[in-house]
Amino acid sequence: MSSNVFGTLFRLMTFGESHGLEIGAVIDGCPAGMALDAADIQRDLDRRRPGQSRYTTQRREEDRVRIVSGVFEGRTTGTPIGLMIENQDQRARDYNEIKQLFRPGHADWTYWKKYGIRDYRGGGRASARETAMRVAGGAIARKVLRSLGVEIQGCLIAMGPVKIDPNRKNWGEVAQNPFFCPDSESVAKFEELLDRCRSQGDSVGAMLEVVARGVPVGWGEPVYGRLDADLAAGMMGINAVKSVEIGAGSHAAEGFGSQMADEMIPDAEAPEGVRFASNHSGGILGGISNGNEIVVRLAVKPTPSIHSELRTVNTMGLAQIIQTRGRHDPCVGIRAVPVAEAMMALVLVDHYLRHRARAGIFKVLHD
Amino acid sequence: MSSNVFGTLFRLMTFGESHGLEIGAVIDGCPAGMALDAADIQRDLDRRRPGQSRYTTQRREEDRVRIVSGVFEGRTTGTPIGLMIENQDQRARDYNEIKQLFRPGHADWTYWKKYGIRDYRGGGRASARETAMRVAGGAIARKVLRSLGVEIQGCLIAMGPVKIDPNRKNWGEVAQNPFFCPDSESVAKFEELLDRCRSQGDSVGAMLEVVARGVPVGWGEPVYGRLDADLAAGMMGINAVKSVEIGAGSHAAEGFGSQMADEMIPDAEAPEGVRFASNHSGGILGGISNGNEIVVRLAVKPTPSIHSELRTVNTMGLAQIIQTRGRHDPCVGIRAVPVAEAMMALVLVDHYLRHRARAGIFKVLHD
Amino acid sequence: MSSNVFGTLFRLMTFGESHGLEIGAVIDGCPAGMALDAADIQRDLDRRRPGQSRYTTQRREEDRVRIVSGVFEGRTTGTPIGLMIENQDQRARDYNEIKQLFRPGHADWTYWKKYGIRDYRGGGRASARETAMRVAGGAIARKVLRSLGVEIQGCLIAMGPVKIDPNRKNWGEVAQNPFFCPDSESVAKFEELLDRCRSQGDSVGAMLEVVARGVPVGWGEPVYGRLDADLAAGMMGINAVKSVEIGAGSHAAEGFGSQMADEMIPDAEAPEGVRFASNHSGGILGGISNGNEIVVRLAVKPTPSIHSELRTVNTMGLAQIIQTRGRHDPCVGIRAVPVAEAMMALVLVDHYLRHRARAGIFKVLHD
Amino acid sequence: MSSNVFGTLFRLMTFGESHGLEIGAVIDGCPAGMALDAADIQRDLDRRRPGQSRYTTQRREEDRVRIVSGVFEGRTTGTPIGLMIENQDQRARDYNEIKQLFRPGHADWTYWKKYGIRDYRGGGRASARETAMRVAGGAIARKVLRSLGVEIQGCLIAMGPVKIDPNRKNWGEVAQNPFFCPDSESVAKFEELLDRCRSQGDSVGAMLEVVARGVPVGWGEPVYGRLDADLAAGMMGINAVKSVEIGAGSHAAEGFGSQMADEMIPDAEAPEGVRFASNHSGGILGGISNGNEIVVRLAVKPTPSIHSELRTVNTMGLAQIIQTRGRHDPCVGIRAVPVAEAMMALVLVDHYLRHRARAGIFKVLHD
Repeated sequence: MSSNVFGTLFRLMTFGESHGLEIGAVIDGCPAGMALDAADIQRDLDRRRPGQSRYTTQRREEDRVRIVSGVFEGRTTGTPIGLMIENQDQRARDYNEIKQLFRPGHADWTYWKKYGIRDYRGGGRASARETAMRVAGGAIARKVLRSLGVEIQGCLIAMGPVKIDPNRKNWGEVAQNPFFCPDSESVAKFEELLDRCRSQGDSVGAMLEVVARGVPVGWGEPVYGRLDADLAAGMMGINAVKSVEIGAGSHAAEGFGSQMADEMIPDAEAPEGVRFASNHSGGILGGISNGNEIVVRLAVKPTPSIHSELRTVNTMGLAQIIQTRGRHDPCVGIRAVPVAEAMMALVLVDHYLRHRARAGIFKVLHD
Repeated sequence: MSSNVFGTLFRLMTFGESHGLEIGAVIDGCPAGMALDAADIQRDLDRRRPGQSRYTTQRREEDRVRIVSGVFEGRTTGTPIGLMIENQDQRARDYNEIKQLFRPGHADWTYWKKYGIRDYRGGGRASARETAMRVAGGAIARKVLRSLGVEIQGCLIAMGPVKIDPNRKNWGEVAQNPFFCPDSESVAKFEELLDRCRSQGDSVGAMLEVVARGVPVGWGEPVYGRLDADLAAGMMGINAVKSVEIGAGSHAAEGFGSQMADEMIPDAEAPEGVRFASNHSGGILGGISNGNEIVVRLAVKPTPSIHSELRTVNTMGLAQIIQTRGRHDPCVGIRAVPVAEAMMALVLVDHYLRHRARAGIFKVLHD
Repeated sequence: MSSNVFGTLFRLMTFGESHGLEIGAVIDGCPAGMALDAADIQRDLDRRRPGQSRYTTQRREEDRVRIVSGVFEGRTTGTPIGLMIENQDQRARDYNEIKQLFRPGHADWTYWKKYGIRDYRGGGRASARETAMRVAGGAIARKVLRSLGVEIQGCLIAMGPVKIDPNRKNWGEVAQNPFFCPDSESVAKFEELLDRCRSQGDSVGAMLEVVARGVPVGWGEPVYGRLDADLAAGMMGINAVKSVEIGAGSHAAEGFGSQMADEMIPDAEAPEGVRFASNHSGGILGGISNGNEIVVRLAVKPTPSIHSELRTVNTMGLAQIIQTRGRHDPCVGIRAVPVAEAMMALVLVDHYLRHRARAGIFKVLHD
Repeated sequence: MSSNVFGTLFRLMTFGESHGLEIGAVIDGCPAGMALDAADIQRDLDRRRPGQSRYTTQRREEDRVRIVSGVFEGRTTGTPIGLMIENQDQRARDYNEIKQLFRPGHADWTYWKKYGIRDYRGGGRASARETAMRVAGGAIARKVLRSLGVEIQGCLIAMGPVKIDPNRKNWGEVAQNPFFCPDSESVAKFEELLDRCRSQGDSVGAMLEVVARGVPVGWGEPVYGRLDADLAAGMMGINAVKSVEIGAGSHAAEGFGSQMADEMIPDAEAPEGVRFASNHSGGILGGISNGNEIVVRLAVKPTPSIHSELRTVNTMGLAQIIQTRGRHDPCVGIRAVPVAEAMMALVLVDHYLRHRARAGIFKVLHD
């Protein structure tokens, strides 16, 4: 119900604007007794932090997180965990010229019409700066999941028209380049594409993939709290995302049932004694995890902040020409990778708790 | 939180299994004073009803809806609207042979592992039979929206490898064929494809599109109650859906910022005095409707109930071969069209009420 | 959020009006695998059923419950449990004369003003008839709790000016009289008081007490999902209830800290090795159960349906005199006892699941 | 669902411990465009602030609130409002001696058992320090309500055995003494009682009354989102509250229907043309406001922190004697007055928005 809360039993609430003094988050429902310090969160924040390569915005933010509650003597206490980050590199005056203009492709116009007022400084609340707090919350979710043997990893599988070669996909490569790219041979192509964008003042979209390994059978609540529905909401709610696919995704529309079946094979080494011959389902059947790898893909649109002249209107409704200057990511999809991992972690830990609430109370004996 | 409730201010709760005696729904939060009778709901139910053409399952269900509460002297009273439909053509014994088998691609295995028990008759709760109640609830949502000038329409734009020609897309055609197909020249190809599936005991996927026209600027609640996030959850939560796209969708990943901008143009005839030169955003910016048409696409996988022999396991964990017989839709995507429309309606009416709760209380004067 | 849903992880949704064809309930979130049949529910329904003694309304309702979903082969499946009861003794025409009148002390006026329309037949949705469904849902909650060793019992400790003698309070007496009275010597006084009310066309209030035994330490979610807060909401939400007290209740205001301390004493036989010397807290500290008996008291007002002439207004806003005839309970507090037990059960089972979701995941070693 | 969130459409989330570095709150759902600055909030905080008279704790806290988000150029923007207060007078070492002891009547034992860990410094999260944030959130709620003509006021009507004289009750007196006492002649008695408590190291309970004037007919959502149920939850959830009464409250149990009717009289000057001859209902019928004054009373227990020696156990389960020293309120009921006002404001503004979401969409014409 709440606009700024994500999750049900493990909840993230965020607040703060791009150019306010601080941004914050509260995690409500984290299990008690887990070791936690700021470094656990900082690691993930640093992966999303701007200004780390010449391919992302040059806004300088250290993104130092401060834990203000919910942790005592190094452990979570079951009470809400408050997190705060100072905005250091605010340059509100950079935005004076767009005070009365609506940038096409941004949320300027819709916030203005919805609320009758907007914080025009860098998009205010609609800025991707808010996603720092998703990553912070996601880091805590991840630590819970890791204790259960669940690992989440994301990567960038296409940038604009350049797609990686699926045969060369190697998760070990992801941390070796500034693009979260799992195919080392695509890295140079991505660099070239971004250099071109930068010189032309243009931007480019990206396709991401996020997987979760080690999720047991049984997470997900049919029929409206399905795991796939919640993942779709979590991912589509990330700034600039325009599509979400699970497993075979849109290819499922093109195929035949005889091709799409994920046959089941007894396998003593598989978690529940069963292995799937394929994973078109992306690890989810009927909204419930089936023990296979959970696979989600999402399309991130090119940032609409480009140097080209675009037609727009001002707050008086008059025609104007706008040309965006300033510090922007040519491909927001890159830094969206840790954000998408965070959303996956938040959805999964929530469903872990939801499942745990009711699982195994009554045993049924079957003949 | 609740697994079987959809929405926040306008809520649908459903209950019932495929081969139980009845299925039901409760709509909580419908505004009072709206004229409503069973015929309003029946119209939409009839569009989803099985057995209407030779291209859908031959299960015989009249799907007669009965309003048991919330309507008095022909008008809604603001109290919950209870709806019931009897299951007439149950054939529980058809399912005896799968009692101990898990059908690949179905939710049999995941329900069994999650709950330790399952109603194996036709998928029980996981059956698409549940979607009848989504359509019923959606019909009420639609009637509210219609009073505001909002219209929702869905169609099938691809079946397996056969795609319609976008240049021939004509919404007026949708009601003229059993496929909700907007391109009259594709109808014969769809028929041919389905006849082939039927003769081979195979099934096929489909791509759907649903649009909403007349949605004003301002519906949607950032940042976790975004309109696009809620639409994604609503659509991905429909049985067999594997991808959800909004506006440019997955094409957004391939493009450049200079191609994707939806320029804004003053236009005295547009609802808020502004027209968009294109609609890559699909009518949503920053999670809030921008006044443009809302456009969602979803991929529906082929039903996994096919005649081919597939490897599976039984409840003892032993290897088995399964071959599905019985009455099944060769393309579940067809009957998913009214379901997707219903989910769109439910999301929109909920956001209408959420927006209405807070809109326009304080006026801000701008110089 | 939803007006007609109670609870979070174990949820009851009810629908239906006093003189509609049917009333219904859906229980969402009941753990799977529990043995359940209609008789489990009927037992509690029969305790609330009208017309069982000459001291309650003579409306004739069998209150036969029908389970329409969520149970398969005698066990809950984890899917929503649908319950339906037919209204048999509707006499809508009895209400024609109040169609245009607002009965003082009833919800007629407030529903009319809120919704612009009302089902005037017997109070419609505001009728205590709705509480049958609370009892039905509570019966299922109780069965879960019983499997954990938690027992709930309610009684009537005062009727109008007549109070039981606390020294004679004997829970074994409760089932022996039509008043749920734990003091056998007060029964005759209650009879006399009700006979007087009946002959004078008057009604009388009552004070109820409900206790839960066997609740372990740890249920309740601070600081806004506290067990006492949720009990207060559950009880105050019962028709005609005007006060809720926990433990010492309003006496806590009158006392001193030196009198109110519940000292703690090591006791190897107590559940957690600790016994409390007294129970002013009513079993709840900081919103969390402390292992002691949970004790709640509630005041039920006299039904406002009395034979005296009262001043009121009609739908035109004109002054009128109203005099209620028809079948009414002279003391609605009596039949409120099983309802209050049901609300206690619903709150407790919900908190059991909420606690279970997160308890014991991480162990902290203390030196 | 969330433990630390209060409300549905207007939501308060709080975080922070008594002796952590900061406490915080987020208000989600405040309407946009309302003028707001820190002074609006500070005014109410100052009324709750400790150390203002010799009758409250001597802990020195300035309680300076800092708005970190959601307000732009002096107006709310519709995004979440983040509030932070630094804890200045932490004295964690004061609590070393209770590190291993459970204080009777406090939440020490229940937090320990529930979470396996506790922040023992001053009660940690269970401390009344958290209520500062309720007051801060309530101040914003109040400002919204004030724009609608709704005013909320609380007072202390009894302290231990000393009750005010209802005939001398004068709301104008409340701000003239440190007890929020509406009867000037009772002030000296309260002083005397507190001096006695202080010299004896004892504490005392209190009875509070809170009223809301100007609430229109129609707020409240039957049957589980009733206004009275939500008020009961809000009030019972305040630290140390043990009873909640509405209108006639517990006296309703003692009375007869003929005494309790609130007759309705046409009155052109009343808001909806109707005046009530009395207000036993406390302004709420069927869970919906009836236009009359809303009247709630609550009992606050004496703080259990007293100088007497009490029996308790330690973390090893061994018998111990405890004697509380330190800075404590002899009557926590006093500072609970602004907290209770805040909870009333939060409940009312939430129901205002909930009602507003659906009210008046369809008009019904009555003959």
